[in-house]
Amino acid sequence: MMLRIDRLPVELPASPKEDPVAAKNVQELLGGRFGEMSTLMNYTYQSFGMRSREKIRPYYALIANIAAEEFGHIEIVSASINSCLNGPRTDFDDSGTMEEGVWKDLPSGVFGGHYIASGQSALPVDSRGMPWTGDYVFSSGNLILDLLHNFFLENGARTQKLRVYQMTDNPAARTMLGYLFVRGGVHALAYARALETLTGVKMSQMLPIPKIGNATCPEARKFMEAGLHLKLYRLSPNDYHEAGPIWSGEAPKEYTEGYSDGAQLEFVDAPPSGGDLAHLAGIASSFAPEYAPEEIMEIANKLYKKAKDL
Amino acid sequence: MMLRIDRLPVELPASPKEDPVAAKNVQELLGGRFGEMSTLMNYTYQSFGMRSREKIRPYYALIANIAAEEFGHIEIVSASINSCLNGPRTDFDDSGTMEEGVWKDLPSGVFGGHYIASGQSALPVDSRGMPWTGDYVFSSGNLILDLLHNFFLENGARTQKLRVYQMTDNPAARTMLGYLFVRGGVHALAYARALETLTGVKMSQMLPIPKIGNATCPEARKFMEAGLHLKLYRLSPNDYHEAGPIWSGEAPKEYTEGYSDGAQLEFVDAPPSGGDLAHLAGIASSFAPEYAPEEIMEIANKLYKKAKDL
Amino acid sequence: MMLRIDRLPVELPASPKEDPVAAKNVQELLGGRFGEMSTLMNYTYQSFGMRSREKIRPYYALIANIAAEEFGHIEIVSASINSCLNGPRTDFDDSGTMEEGVWKDLPSGVFGGHYIASGQSALPVDSRGMPWTGDYVFSSGNLILDLLHNFFLENGARTQKLRVYQMTDNPAARTMLGYLFVRGGVHALAYARALETLTGVKMSQMLPIPKIGNATCPEARKFMEAGLHLKLYRLSPNDYHEAGPIWSGEAPKEYTEGYSDGAQLEFVDAPPSGGDLAHLAGIASSFAPEYAPEEIMEIANKLYKKAKDL
Amino acid sequence: MMLRIDRLPVELPASPKEDPVAAKNVQELLGGRFGEMSTLMNYTYQSFGMRSREKIRPYYALIANIAAEEFGHIEIVSASINSCLNGPRTDFDDSGTMEEGVWKDLPSGVFGGHYIASGQSALPVDSRGMPWTGDYVFSSGNLILDLLHNFFLENGARTQKLRVYQMTDNPAARTMLGYLFVRGGVHALAYARALETLTGVKMSQMLPIPKIGNATCPEARKFMEAGLHLKLYRLSPNDYHEAGPIWSGEAPKEYTEGYSDGAQLEFVDAPPSGGDLAHLAGIASSFAPEYAPEEIMEIANKLYKKAKDL
Amino acid sequence: MMLRIDRLPVELPASPKEDPVAAKNVQELLGGRFGEMSTLMNYTYQSFGMRSREKIRPYYALIANIAAEEFGHIEIVSASINSCLNGPRTDFDDSGTMEEGVWKDLPSGVFGGHYIASGQSALPVDSRGMPWTGDYVFSSGNLILDLLHNFFLENGARTQKLRVYQMTDNPAARTMLGYLFVRGGVHALAYARALETLTGVKMSQMLPIPKIGNATCPEARKFMEAGLHLKLYRLSPNDYHEAGPIWSGEAPKEYTEGYSDGAQLEFVDAPPSGGDLAHLAGIASSFAPEYAPEEIMEIANKLYKKAKDL
Amino acid sequence: MMLRIDRLPVELPASPKEDPVAAKNVQELLGGRFGEMSTLMNYTYQSFGMRSREKIRPYYALIANIAAEEFGHIEIVSASINSCLNGPRTDFDDSGTMEEGVWKDLPSGVFGGHYIASGQSALPVDSRGMPWTGDYVFSSGNLILDLLHNFFLENGARTQKLRVYQMTDNPAARTMLGYLFVRGGVHALAYARALETLTGVKMSQMLPIPKIGNATCPEARKFMEAGLHLKLYRLSPNDYHEAGPIWSGEAPKEYTEGYSDGAQLEFVDAPPSGGDLAHLAGIASSFAPEYAPEEIMEIANKLYKKAKDL
Repeated sequence: MMLRIDRLPVELPASPKEDPVAAKNVQELLGGRFGEMSTLMNYTYQSFGMRSREKIRPYYALIANIAAEEFGHIEIVSASINSCLNGPRTDFDDSGTMEEGVWKDLPSGVFGGHYIASGQSALPVDSRGMPWTGDYVFSSGNLILDLLHNFFLENGARTQKLRVYQMTDNPAARTMLGYLFVRGGVHALAYARALETLTGVKMSQMLPIPKIGNATCPEARKFMEAGLHLKLYRLSPNDYHEAGPIWSGEAPKEYTEGYSDGAQLEFVDAPPSGGDLAHLAGIASSFAPEYAPEEIMEIANKLYKKAKDL
Repeated sequence: MMLRIDRLPVELPASPKEDPVAAKNVQELLGGRFGEMSTLMNYTYQSFGMRSREKIRPYYALIANIAAEEFGHIEIVSASINSCLNGPRTDFDDSGTMEEGVWKDLPSGVFGGHYIASGQSALPVDSRGMPWTGDYVFSSGNLILDLLHNFFLENGARTQKLRVYQMTDNPAARTMLGYLFVRGGVHALAYARALETLTGVKMSQMLPIPKIGNATCPEARKFMEAGLHLKLYRLSPNDYHEAGPIWSGEAPKEYTEGYSDGAQLEFVDAPPSGGDLAHLAGIASSFAPEYAPEEIMEIANKLYKKAKDL
Repeated sequence: MMLRIDRLPVELPASPKEDPVAAKNVQELLGGRFGEMSTLMNYTYQSFGMRSREKIRPYYALIANIAAEEFGHIEIVSASINSCLNGPRTDFDDSGTMEEGVWKDLPSGVFGGHYIASGQSALPVDSRGMPWTGDYVFSSGNLILDLLHNFFLENGARTQKLRVYQMTDNPAARTMLGYLFVRGGVHALAYARALETLTGVKMSQMLPIPKIGNATCPEARKFMEAGLHLKLYRLSPNDYHEAGPIWSGEAPKEYTEGYSDGAQLEFVDAPPSGGDLAHLAGIASSFAPEYAPEEIMEIANKLYKKAKDL
Repeated sequence: MMLRIDRLPVELPASPKEDPVAAKNVQELLGGRFGEMSTLMNYTYQSFGMRSREKIRPYYALIANIAAEEFGHIEIVSASINSCLNGPRTDFDDSGTMEEGVWKDLPSGVFGGHYIASGQSALPVDSRGMPWTGDYVFSSGNLILDLLHNFFLENGARTQKLRVYQMTDNPAARTMLGYLFVRGGVHALAYARALETLTGVKMSQMLPIPKIGNATCPEARKFMEAGLHLKLYRLSPNDYHEAGPIWSGEAPKEYTEGYSDGAQLEFVDAPPSGGDLAHLAGIASSFAPEYAPEEIMEIANKLYKKAKDL
Repeated sequence: MMLRIDRLPVELPASPKEDPVAAKNVQELLGGRFGEMSTLMNYTYQSFGMRSREKIRPYYALIANIAAEEFGHIEIVSASINSCLNGPRTDFDDSGTMEEGVWKDLPSGVFGGHYIASGQSALPVDSRGMPWTGDYVFSSGNLILDLLHNFFLENGARTQKLRVYQMTDNPAARTMLGYLFVRGGVHALAYARALETLTGVKMSQMLPIPKIGNATCPEARKFMEAGLHLKLYRLSPNDYHEAGPIWSGEAPKEYTEGYSDGAQLEFVDAPPSGGDLAHLAGIASSFAPEYAPEEIMEIANKLYKKAKDL
Repeated sequence: MMLRIDRLPVELPASPKEDPVAAKNVQELLGGRFGEMSTLMNYTYQSFGMRSREKIRPYYALIANIAAEEFGHIEIVSASINSCLNGPRTDFDDSGTMEEGVWKDLPSGVFGGHYIASGQSALPVDSRGMPWTGDYVFSSGNLILDLLHNFFLENGARTQKLRVYQMTDNPAARTMLGYLFVRGGVHALAYARALETLTGVKMSQMLPIPKIGNATCPEARKFMEAGLHLKLYRLSPNDYHEAGPIWSGEAPKEYTEGYSDGAQLEFVDAPPSGGDLAHLAGIASSFAPEYAPEEIMEIANKLYKKAKDL
């Protein structure tokens, strides 16, 4: 089961402009083969199907717990896309009439689904607009093979994120990327260490892939400075403690990149404090939440007040 | 963000036999167009992208909170599939040598992926073996249209579940189905009431679809008796209270089917107590978690003990 | 069986320019999940498979007859795309040599298939270029569920059309859209009324979805003025009369939007008079119908004359 | 536009048993790459997009008119599948309770979608259960290439039908096949003749492909005896006369196989008289049209009577 | 089995600029339904599965041998795409820092996968970015039908190539196209002749499709002048001699287009001499082969030297 | 470019019976995500797109050369499927008339495409019948990431093969599997060594995955005894020598499993001697190569004789 917290893992700045091209490219990191839908669902299904779970509990706990963090990652990548599609709007936007056709000068290469299907919000598709598919899930049941897969997946995801970073300077996208370079790095190292305990092969020495540190990106640097690369969050009221011994000991030097060299890896007993969800203005042209939403907002308002009184 | 609880929404009985045919059919309810992956992801993406969220908060809270319950539903459908694939085994199963070919007499119509790809565990695919796809997500941003979609989706899902019920008498499958008839009924009614507040149209009078009560199935009856059809769980440490006024008032008579007629709908401030995860024996022929897993179990055991000492 | 009439439901103006961007966006309304291929095929397969058809004949007749109208809708959406791709050309276009590369400055975001695959004509794909798929067909056999689906489908289709309207001011596209706002409205109301007879739930009060009248669009207004929103065409030499009582009585006031308020819904005993098919000039660069088609045109001409003599 | 006739091209015998395996295999001929969805949609889109249509009218008329016949072919293949899924049932079937699970002993290799999704009726999918897709449509705009494609498509379709014929002896399937061997043969010859007029290449000499006559199948023989192989139906109230000169002259000897050798090809000015639609009994276990449909049948009955009085 | 030669069938000029739009369009000719992946795999699987191979050996040898040439064709189409993506770069390109975002001004309609997924190189996808699929393979086992398919496939491929030619004037693309017009012409004629021997139908008279000679393209002309249209290469150390009698005799006049009229078709006993592989510079922004590859180049260099000493 | 040798890498025994169930399962190893189409195409596209190829030549040569061997692997997996579908037949099989329906008692769970589409031969699809897709190709351009991918791919492929081994005791399948356990092991070790040279991480110590030796399978044992696990074949007339230093040195002890412990890895300068292609009888019911093929066999025979005289 899952409890949901109505916050993002980290707060994102608003996009300074409506930026559908960035939104389209970032979709790859949500619904592509190496997107966060894939990390979420790979680890989720591996945890569902793990055999002899009771006897290999540290590995189970590690995978199940990282799966939980990945839900926050589909949330933040979506928030980044939504911010790019919203731009700096804060109020209900009813500029333009139907007849004027507010979107008639959109660049022809944007993802049409953002306008036609989703009311300018993120969808579980990649940068082609092709849907995420369950065939991206690898869950073989063999522990070493699944961990090797996960190690590869995290590094493939990092590579693609580094490339998308170079395709946009939108701060809503880059802040999300900076955060995920660091958090994805934690997951890659966690799987490397799990493999090391099982095989003796020093997978962590292969990192980073590609051979370029997180600190190259200013947006990642501030999270390194805050020591986020050292923390694995335990995302459960009472469970998954057993992952602790895998995420422990001194962080490898190449990994810390001069930030807290020699520090200990830490299994933190709480979720990150996180940040507020981005504000998404209503838009008449998208009928989101309605063309002229006063009436439903009034209804909602009454219900809302009633809720507060409960 | 998400916190994960290492329990199922409800405990399932073990499948009395290895039952790959039931497992294949139940896959439709996990990865098909009307499977739980669809309910989970539809509501999740609708909640991510909702515009003017602050002003229509009760509807936001309702959708976001039901999304959280759906995670438990992919979990329990997967658990049911996994139980069918495991059968009554409790110990590591190393019967048969490679050469004997333990699977050479499988019925030819089972889903090969359960044996070749996943080590006898659930995958996010449908009963054809075709993957769940992000194109099943409908998130238009228009509040009424999204709610109408959700109402339709829940009823389509119910119809398919009633049909799968008739394709198997496996108790691991039927217990899951009985539970979901009741919980899916809660969601259908919740979306009906949300539409009623916004449009005045009495959608709840259309229920049940098809016109056959939950109580037709003994496995559902016990959950009706326990009053589960009256409860919407608030699945969050601190959020989503605002959904309360939508899920309130007297339950419609057709809905209660004689179980607690006239009772009030209740927004419960906690997750269900739930049940233990099913035990899944290791299987040598699947190399899950390994062909001869003693060594890795010993490593895990040491780590596990270390974890307990923390 | 089907008889085909070589006319469009309504005549479209020629596109004033070659407009591949509009053509691409309009493809969503042909081959997307909510495109006219979907309405055509959903109702067609529901009519093929309806059980106890003889006993629920009014509903059968309604669905089967609307299916017939949808063939005209894939025709007119295709005609609109073809007009955008053709532009104002009327004669065979052999400007430019192969070597010059007449298409080398196409905007990079157009749908390449329009140039590479189809000779500048419509294909059953969506705005991503992804094909329409039979998985978009919902035909459960349960009458209420199928009608609910159809009601949802029509409203989803309307929402997407309203959005595409705002993406283009091309008159070939907007005239088609204006016509389909009205005709789609007829179908939505027809399914609403069918549900009302069966369940007593006043589905028609939910219309329009989104809450914006057809009359917002000048292109729809002229069809409202002509009373097309009141007419359901019987598209059969001798069959489907039984749908009449469903499409009868006074039109709801919100539905008529001030056009013929209080008027009666009318089941018209004929197809619309319709309009001429659009002219599509031959194009050398597309080899459509040939690079230098004189020879085949001469052959065709002889056959044509022979035909007239028959 | 299209007018619909509520009859099948030819009447089919009822399947003597519930035969889901035949139903599954026949799906290939409906929704597969060479199924009737493909012939219908290929010719339909070619006719929509044909350039210089006025100048190559005989070819346009031929393709547009054959497209119209193909609608009857998706209808009859669907009817054949529906008959196999229905079996000899004639009354509403409410045998078995939910709890008994009437489908729990289905062969594991049937197409689950026939039971879970469609209420035991045909869907636009192939024998794998994979959906028909718009990517099966070839419409290049080049007349010779499109005709060559169509000639190939018809022969590919014939080959697959001959193979499915050998996979079943169900009369509902074989009667449909016998009919389509003859009608598909007409279309193959029509495209061959069209190519011959344009290129001088004697494509008709390549027929039949494979080299096995229709008369090998008793079910085809009776249609040969009735001379159906000589007739092309004009399926339009007023249009498509211009195709006549292509379908004229003496039928090739290999083609007639001794049935009416030396006879003239005939462009018939009417649709086939056709046959009654198959009766499909209601089924409680499928909730089609409902679990206990008395109430809706009564409503429908009243509407039906009202219709007769109109 | 296969032996690989590290050369292209013909040498390509470098693209004078980074040209991602040309690269995207050319992808259709690699991974589209009519791309070289399709010709390669169709003929390969037909050769794998041919029955009575020993008795119809000339046809087997023809198809198997043409399959071998198609490997060189996926190679050269890929090389053309890679050249467009590389542009005139010759040295390692480390211009721009991560932070600058070298790709932030890419046209929005390029194929994102070229930047995000593949490090600026070709992938087996079409111009939509959709993957080549095994469903494009037609291998019926019926010899005449397979040959007819192949004849159609080659002509469909030619049509699409002629269209892509008009979408770009990039010499890396056009040189490839000129070469393949000629080689594809050889294959089309070869299949035509095979069909002629079996059926007596003069398929070669239908060529070229579309009716525009290769010589229209200057890039093809030089290969016609060199007589490449007359040669079928035997691509095997010792096998496939038996195809010779099919590719023999005088070339048809329309086919030679005035180049070597009356010359004999020639089955050449060797592969083409071919050309050097294109040089692809390393790119820091793509991390291809690494962000700062000195270290791995040094390692490779040592290994390379060691290899030379062997 | 490629030269083709008309032999299999190793000879397969004939299947003792027609075994469509084995054929279906083995398809996973041909057209599934971890099938030989994937290994072939991954390495092929990586070699096509490698940047700075001249400077990292040993790695280029390794990947390009292994790609060449994979062609032989799609060949042998296909041959194994074809053998299962053929059974022990050696002569043209014309038993049974069309009317008898020779396939009407096929098990319902076989892959219908083997009978309907392909004339009882292999297709590039997986065990669901779903096509291999180009999205299975990973070619990032980053050398370490691509090698890591390839290492993972080979181990995933091995795991699935070990599982399919247990699903059949058909010698045509098991001999192929035994051969590929050994050859896939060579490739896994080759990629491990390549990674070791670049990163110092001892990847080869992770092998085998799963932890079960090849020698468990008698069919693999004989190839181990013949020392095939020590040999990498150079599959090129003149190229790819530079891969030698990667495949050199002493074979790891766990890898040799007691077969030639301490032996040196060997880069063999030739293809394997291989085995004869399997004989596939003609089948009337499949029209492969024809229903009654005498005529075309006679034509072929004449051409064949002519070829021998050349």
